[in-house]
Amino acid sequence: MSFKYIDGGICASKGFKASGTYCGIKKPSTDNMNTKHKNDICMYVSDTICNTAAVYTQNKVKGAPIIVTKANLEKSNNKAIAVIANSKNANTCNADGIEKADKMCQLVADELGIQKEYVVVASTGVIGQVLPIEPIEKAVPILVKELDYNKNQEAATAIMTTDTVKKEYAVEFKLGNAVCHIGGMAKGSGMIHPNMATTLNFITTDCAISAKLLQKALSEIVKVTYNCLSIDGDTSTNDMVCIMANGLAYNNEITEEGSDYEVFKAALYEVMASLTRMLAKDGEGASKLLECICTGAPDKNTAIAIAKSVVCSSLFKAAMFGEDANWGRVLCAIGYADADFDINLVDVNLRSDKGTVEVCKNGTGIEFSEEKASTVLSCDEIYIDINLNQGNENATAWGCDLTYDYVKINGDYRT
Amino acid sequence: MSFKYIDGGICASKGFKASGTYCGIKKPSTDNMNTKHKNDICMYVSDTICNTAAVYTQNKVKGAPIIVTKANLEKSNNKAIAVIANSKNANTCNADGIEKADKMCQLVADELGIQKEYVVVASTGVIGQVLPIEPIEKAVPILVKELDYNKNQEAATAIMTTDTVKKEYAVEFKLGNAVCHIGGMAKGSGMIHPNMATTLNFITTDCAISAKLLQKALSEIVKVTYNCLSIDGDTSTNDMVCIMANGLAYNNEITEEGSDYEVFKAALYEVMASLTRMLAKDGEGASKLLECICTGAPDKNTAIAIAKSVVCSSLFKAAMFGEDANWGRVLCAIGYADADFDINLVDVNLRSDKGTVEVCKNGTGIEFSEEKASTVLSCDEIYIDINLNQGNENATAWGCDLTYDYVKINGDYRT
Repeated sequence: MSFKYIDGGICASKGFKASGTYCGIKKPSTDNMNTKHKNDICMYVSDTICNTAAVYTQNKVKGAPIIVTKANLEKSNNKAIAVIANSKNANTCNADGIEKADKMCQLVADELGIQKEYVVVASTGVIGQVLPIEPIEKAVPILVKELDYNKNQEAATAIMTTDTVKKEYAVEFKLGNAVCHIGGMAKGSGMIHPNMATTLNFITTDCAISAKLLQKALSEIVKVTYNCLSIDGDTSTNDMVCIMANGLAYNNEITEEGSDYEVFKAALYEVMASLTRMLAKDGEGASKLLECICTGAPDKNTAIAIAKSVVCSSLFKAAMFGEDANWGRVLCAIGYADADFDINLVDVNLRSDKGTVEVCKNGTGIEFSEEKASTVLSCDEIYIDINLNQGNENATAWGCDLTYDYVKINGDYRT
Repeated sequence: MSFKYIDGGICASKGFKASGTYCGIKKPSTDNMNTKHKNDICMYVSDTICNTAAVYTQNKVKGAPIIVTKANLEKSNNKAIAVIANSKNANTCNADGIEKADKMCQLVADELGIQKEYVVVASTGVIGQVLPIEPIEKAVPILVKELDYNKNQEAATAIMTTDTVKKEYAVEFKLGNAVCHIGGMAKGSGMIHPNMATTLNFITTDCAISAKLLQKALSEIVKVTYNCLSIDGDTSTNDMVCIMANGLAYNNEITEEGSDYEVFKAALYEVMASLTRMLAKDGEGASKLLECICTGAPDKNTAIAIAKSVVCSSLFKAAMFGEDANWGRVLCAIGYADADFDINLVDVNLRSDKGTVEVCKNGTGIEFSEEKASTVLSCDEIYIDINLNQGNENATAWGCDLTYDYVKINGDYRT
């Protein structure tokens, strides 16, 4: 299946308005995070009530907004209308965290004239600093006033922390005669090693689809997209993916698995995989995107475990930063993946726009041109092709190199 | 129990001779690894045959020396006399690896006039480069000729790769009237995240102890020492701990669990924990040792999982390099540890020779002096005290900070 890429991010889906502004959660003078993108709070709202699905971090330490959103969606029977999100403060490990997250929902509900349980709330930033509520109280009326069908970028920049670029992606596709859309925005870019959830990801669609199938599709696609992404092996406390479907495309509502559901899922994969790739490429300090494609696996979980193990290896990540074809570290990472397979059948190639180098055949090193390897590794998108040669399943994992800048950014993030 | 620390490393145990030399496995001109310590091959030999125990890497990619050593110890019914080890080439993922590792044993056996299965062989260094055997053929007679009861340092420097200091430790203790010793040497310092084994660690003892109890003690102590160490989350292909007991202390042979066994185990813990700490402190690029002590756990495995999770967190490691008291990252890492506990009871302190800062109580941040925190974190040994307040078990894990130098060393290790 192929989909038409379109602009518009979360506003690409019909009937979604967005807005973003700077409210001053951190004082500008002490804010060393991304001064180019000043927005620190955003909102988006659907014209009609939406079936809504979400997955959350598996970290035992959960941000207060995660707890409040989960409770709201339970209370509303998986319906939502509006989302509010701030950056620069995670509202996590604070004694008054839940109270403040709940207050954010109440402010939005009051201003929009809707019930509080129809509001999704998210926060990202430093853990363990008290969230100032006054700036948010002032910001909510402004955000509501400025809501517009084309302010997706205002929202997408407001959720950035150490991100260097905003992440948006949207596709258009047809179900019957209905023109449907799925759009999304995401933030990175450190503390990323999702586990059944991810960093903040917001997705909208105008497809009509039942809440149950929306959740099923989201959970399935998360497994092979965000959960196959690692920047640094740290699973965040505030991970969340939320998808809202308002049905304004007026397709026949998808209420059972079948061809429409498969098309929807494929479109959702396209959006989520594209955002995942953007997150990897903009990983903290990253100079190179690493995409590990494991094929020939006996089963899906083995393919995922091996592809993830390689993009998680600090040693391999540092070697890629140094453009050193140290394939032994790929083999080493394959070897400690938690999976059952025969290492003696494994082939490994390193590949980029500048060509392919075969470095390992049947688990054993083969001679290759160091000169050619250097050329291949000089690109900023590197593919590691692993063929296990023992089955037909495959998986892709995304990561980035480990650089001086990663250390620099994280040596002094908070102060 | 307290033990008397003594000099002598692996030669601290009676009846063990050692030697080390430079044989030229890598050409000096292309060798950018640690030119201060030129030795690249060593040997040590017991005056009498030894009960021997070992644990090996759980990586599916196993270095050829691991396979050969394992086979030898099986054939010899856990007896050994001599050990040969080289650095700078791991002899792993090579088509002729096993043949070469076997040849190394044969060379030693021929020169010493012993059976080949009494030889333990180990290699460490780059994965996937063919091991040149000629330099080793020339070195073995030299190593045998130079064997001496006080050449432990010659051996300890020969196993170094990116290590900046040699690691040796030995203790003296009494069993009845017999004066006993346990001595050891280890190499680090990257690709360290042991799993039922560790990087290369060689231990000698003159205690008389059955092969069965020697293996039992080793396996138990590995779990709470080397396996609680992480430099970079990468489990090496060539990990091995080997302990040889020659009985020359003439204590009543330890053949069953009881007070003598407990004393022996405590002494072994002292040696292995001290070497573990040295490995952490000399982690690749490290500027600070991190020691995480988890107390008040409902069970041992929970304590281990939590302490390890904290020292494995790239984000927390980078924060320690930056001397930033970003305790939220400690809570985050505790939260994603694979263990079952109540996060709302957890207290966290950061501690060094310059004092203690309480940063978190009952899972929630508490106010602290940033100035004091900066002073505490300025030391080069940082302790992270975690009290789960839900039991009586405890564990310690060791690691180091994540620095520019780690990236530098590993961006260009091989070429």
